[in-house]
Amino acid sequence: MAIINNNARGTSRTKTAGRSRAKFTEAKVERRRSTGGAKGTRKTAANAARNIKNAPLKLIPLGGLDEIGKNMTLYEYGNDIFIVDCGMTFPDAEMPGVDIVIPDFSYVLQNRDRIRGIVLTHGHEDHIGGLPYLLKNLNVPVYGTKLTLGLVNAKLKEHDLGHAVKMKEVHPGDKVKLGCFSVEFIHVNHSIPDSVAVAVKTPVGMIVQTGDFKIDASPIDGDVIDLARFAELGKQGVLALLMDSTNATRPGFAMSERIVGASFSQFFKNAAKKRIVVATFSSNIHRVQQIIDEAVKCKRKVCVSGRSMENVVAIATELGYLKIPAGVLIPVDMIGQYKDEQLVIITTGSQGEPMSALHRMAYGDHRKISVGPNDLIIISANPIPGNEKMVIAVVNELMKLGARVVYERMYDVHVSGHACQEELKLMISLVKPRFFMPVHGEQMHLRKNAELAGELGMRKEDIMIASIGQVVELTEKRMRVNGQVPAGFVLVDGLGVGDVGSIVLRDRKHLSEDGIIVVSVAVDSVSGQVLAGPELISRGFIYVKESEALLEDARKIVDQVLSGVDLRRTRDLTAVRVKIRDALSRYLYQITRRSPMILPVIMEV
Amino acid sequence: MAIINNNARGTSRTKTAGRSRAKFTEAKVERRRSTGGAKGTRKTAANAARNIKNAPLKLIPLGGLDEIGKNMTLYEYGNDIFIVDCGMTFPDAEMPGVDIVIPDFSYVLQNRDRIRGIVLTHGHEDHIGGLPYLLKNLNVPVYGTKLTLGLVNAKLKEHDLGHAVKMKEVHPGDKVKLGCFSVEFIHVNHSIPDSVAVAVKTPVGMIVQTGDFKIDASPIDGDVIDLARFAELGKQGVLALLMDSTNATRPGFAMSERIVGASFSQFFKNAAKKRIVVATFSSNIHRVQQIIDEAVKCKRKVCVSGRSMENVVAIATELGYLKIPAGVLIPVDMIGQYKDEQLVIITTGSQGEPMSALHRMAYGDHRKISVGPNDLIIISANPIPGNEKMVIAVVNELMKLGARVVYERMYDVHVSGHACQEELKLMISLVKPRFFMPVHGEQMHLRKNAELAGELGMRKEDIMIASIGQVVELTEKRMRVNGQVPAGFVLVDGLGVGDVGSIVLRDRKHLSEDGIIVVSVAVDSVSGQVLAGPELISRGFIYVKESEALLEDARKIVDQVLSGVDLRRTRDLTAVRVKIRDALSRYLYQITRRSPMILPVIMEV
Repeated sequence: MAIINNNARGTSRTKTAGRSRAKFTEAKVERRRSTGGAKGTRKTAANAARNIKNAPLKLIPLGGLDEIGKNMTLYEYGNDIFIVDCGMTFPDAEMPGVDIVIPDFSYVLQNRDRIRGIVLTHGHEDHIGGLPYLLKNLNVPVYGTKLTLGLVNAKLKEHDLGHAVKMKEVHPGDKVKLGCFSVEFIHVNHSIPDSVAVAVKTPVGMIVQTGDFKIDASPIDGDVIDLARFAELGKQGVLALLMDSTNATRPGFAMSERIVGASFSQFFKNAAKKRIVVATFSSNIHRVQQIIDEAVKCKRKVCVSGRSMENVVAIATELGYLKIPAGVLIPVDMIGQYKDEQLVIITTGSQGEPMSALHRMAYGDHRKISVGPNDLIIISANPIPGNEKMVIAVVNELMKLGARVVYERMYDVHVSGHACQEELKLMISLVKPRFFMPVHGEQMHLRKNAELAGELGMRKEDIMIASIGQVVELTEKRMRVNGQVPAGFVLVDGLGVGDVGSIVLRDRKHLSEDGIIVVSVAVDSVSGQVLAGPELISRGFIYVKESEALLEDARKIVDQVLSGVDLRRTRDLTAVRVKIRDALSRYLYQITRRSPMILPVIMEV
Repeated sequence: MAIINNNARGTSRTKTAGRSRAKFTEAKVERRRSTGGAKGTRKTAANAARNIKNAPLKLIPLGGLDEIGKNMTLYEYGNDIFIVDCGMTFPDAEMPGVDIVIPDFSYVLQNRDRIRGIVLTHGHEDHIGGLPYLLKNLNVPVYGTKLTLGLVNAKLKEHDLGHAVKMKEVHPGDKVKLGCFSVEFIHVNHSIPDSVAVAVKTPVGMIVQTGDFKIDASPIDGDVIDLARFAELGKQGVLALLMDSTNATRPGFAMSERIVGASFSQFFKNAAKKRIVVATFSSNIHRVQQIIDEAVKCKRKVCVSGRSMENVVAIATELGYLKIPAGVLIPVDMIGQYKDEQLVIITTGSQGEPMSALHRMAYGDHRKISVGPNDLIIISANPIPGNEKMVIAVVNELMKLGARVVYERMYDVHVSGHACQEELKLMISLVKPRFFMPVHGEQMHLRKNAELAGELGMRKEDIMIASIGQVVELTEKRMRVNGQVPAGFVLVDGLGVGDVGSIVLRDRKHLSEDGIIVVSVAVDSVSGQVLAGPELISRGFIYVKESEALLEDARKIVDQVLSGVDLRRTRDLTAVRVKIRDALSRYLYQITRRSPMILPVIMEV
């Protein structure tokens, strides 16, 4: 049992088990509601002095670069590390059967005793979805705003981690100390309420990380992004800015969320006797609020369908983020008691997801809601790249049922939650960072964001497009990549985390494209004589009933191979298997131009 | 051997073989270059008189409705049938391993002796890609413009059908007689030269089918769509219009192809010392011409990379559709002899296709061309729905190599070849059809196209949104669906046509998501004793090295099942297999939450 130094102040603790549960000096939560920041600055400067002089700060992104999703960034200085966000992403077409993808936590777990805490910017899956998997192996406090922690809590309960995790609620303006770092939370606008940016006072200078943000001058909750605080930080001097790149390729400004409300208002007014169904992201609580507000105006009842929508509406209502007048919400079982014109259904499935409520409605699989010509269906979302075909399929099916479906961009039934080019430039101009590091985006988004900074006069050498796992070292004078830690993606499939890797995926891909043929044969282990078989069974290769002759010929090929080897002498069954595979493969390719996986099974009796 | 009446004029011929090769009265090709049509009209009216009076015309779509692709429409009257287009489409995510998808030809082959010919509107895959598969089983003449037939010819050669097929070249203005039908070809604009619409004089009236079209007032080849002829037909009276719906959800007008040339011109001028690579659709010959023209202006050599691009450039040059000054084109092997600033590479891969030239360049797999920071790469295409992620991946990789990549919509490096809403409305206004049937599109496109006709005052009951296989009957007074013929999709996988169906696809999907476990056991056929095994082999299920314990436990489960049945008495091995499958399935799901396919193989010795 080793003695491990686990925090920057030099106290040491014993590691008690394989899965160590280090205890932590609880960080002091300091509230700062006003815009004044001079006091805080002085304090953190004092902290800095306690640390190793001239050592660089290390920024280590473990996700969110060269990808949309699984955002995660480590701040490391001396013996202190803290983490900003811990997201997940969805598998792509090359990862069949995989449920979700999370970052590689190796470096975090290798340094478990140095981790001072996890700071969350907001409650979207790409920022909190990886948390349960990390917290199963690491017990550190989690800092976030009220709604963010509410959503995390629901997620942890699903993973039976509800009670084990220390959660610390913060408010915009608060500062928390995490080892040598002081982290301040700054209110931003985004497509989920209670989103924050962080300003991290480090021994080498101030780092601003925006999280996901947009600038909405007329947001639904009334609080515009705290541009004043960003400006103030900019005046005081910011060493580096890490900024959201998601919409960096889109010119102009992202539209205000209020635009969507105006569109809803028009559609609801003109819906006449129709039932209204609106599909949107469950986490877009402002959107849900606007739908409810319009429903109330039109004296319609609201029914919520879809598991994640029901969960989020419950949490957001309980925490006060969603205001629903009494008597408006009705359970889905009661919709039969109302006329179509008295109903609004809010549902999941705006991305065409196969198991979602809207998908089930479209394909007639929803147990409680059936769609017909008297439905007006509004899809209040844009398809995420990769989901277009699924969304189109759902729209087509809904139309075939006779429903009117509103999904086109031109109707303003959706706005993005991410800053576009003009907003990004504005943020850079306010924060005036010495160094700039675009985050949250594919290569194309990162590059464009870097270009924007270049247009504002930043020098190329002061802008860093990093990759996950790279150690970005920062001093007052320099930003450079120095080193690499393990990083990548870990696949979650069912209960398995990381037990599906490239070999399994390669096999799945092969199986999906050409299927499999199992060749079984039983041989006498003494005489080498074939006792039974060869028997061929195929799956996913060809329609068997129409291809009996082909499979019979294939069996003969195996027969030939077997009669060509002396199984008594050839103790090397692997070589026999290879021969069967090669001969069969060659034959089948010649006849069909397909290459099924061939699995020879030789049973020695 | 039956005597089969095989044309409307009452002559009869003997069917000579299972794969009948009926001989045809060769259709007279009548040339009409001017806009006058009165003479033609009188002649076809005379033809009509010879036909059964008051019988309805049947329009039978076999593809292109409720889908983008595999366009194919049958015109049937009395004993005469002819076909407009015979396209293919690409498989979707639910069809792993499938190469292409073609229409179900059952109805055509059942009526092989009544088919008078195939008329092609243009040379895109979704209009000609199914032809080789049909012509293998049906020998009828094929009518198309020069370029269309040139492309068909290349395709037929690949299928060893080059000499067998009778191809009849037509020009805009020409009319051909196919049984009781007279088909006139009308010049339209589209993203491939030599595109035509057809005006079909039938015994019940004139039918206009636009094929794919747009209205380009400044096309590259100088010929604007023949709006005058559409207007003239409209004045004379058109019974029904079948119109392209691809862009029906897009407001406004499609931009002129010339816009793209202007953009190229800017990019080429500003490229300075860089090499230029442009990726586009090989069939967009006007686009290719514009790239070549700009290259010539900038005194750059042009190299063509990618099999389909090389093929189309060769065909189009040979047929005179592409004009390349001598000495401009260089083979890829010679690019090393020129400086970057002297080169333009035209390539395939604008959709991010895995085997394409651009994809290979992006991933460093191209044998002749390696991309670097001195490359300006223009992707002159928009991603087709479903391809977005592939295109983004290619762009990201090219950027990582340091190249500048232009792909965004805002740069006008691509325009659509399909009419948008204002063009569609203009076409309806000119043709003034009694009935309207939107074709070529998903349900959303068909509905929107129908809505547009409604906005122009057409009555709902005069607009038909049909499905493939439906028999749409038309008389002078009525349009209705009356009957259904076999229709759907036939999957082509390697050399197999139609031997992959729903069962095979279901298995492939299952295999791709959870993999397979093969359970082998050898039993004594007399004593029922287990002689060898059970042995478990998994593929695509779990990383085996880390899961040996799990698989060992699984083996024990199978052992238990086997010891619980008396194999001597139980002659029903199927029941034993089911027991093994159920027990193993339950166990694995409990431990992993996955459901691999389980294939028990019991060998009786």
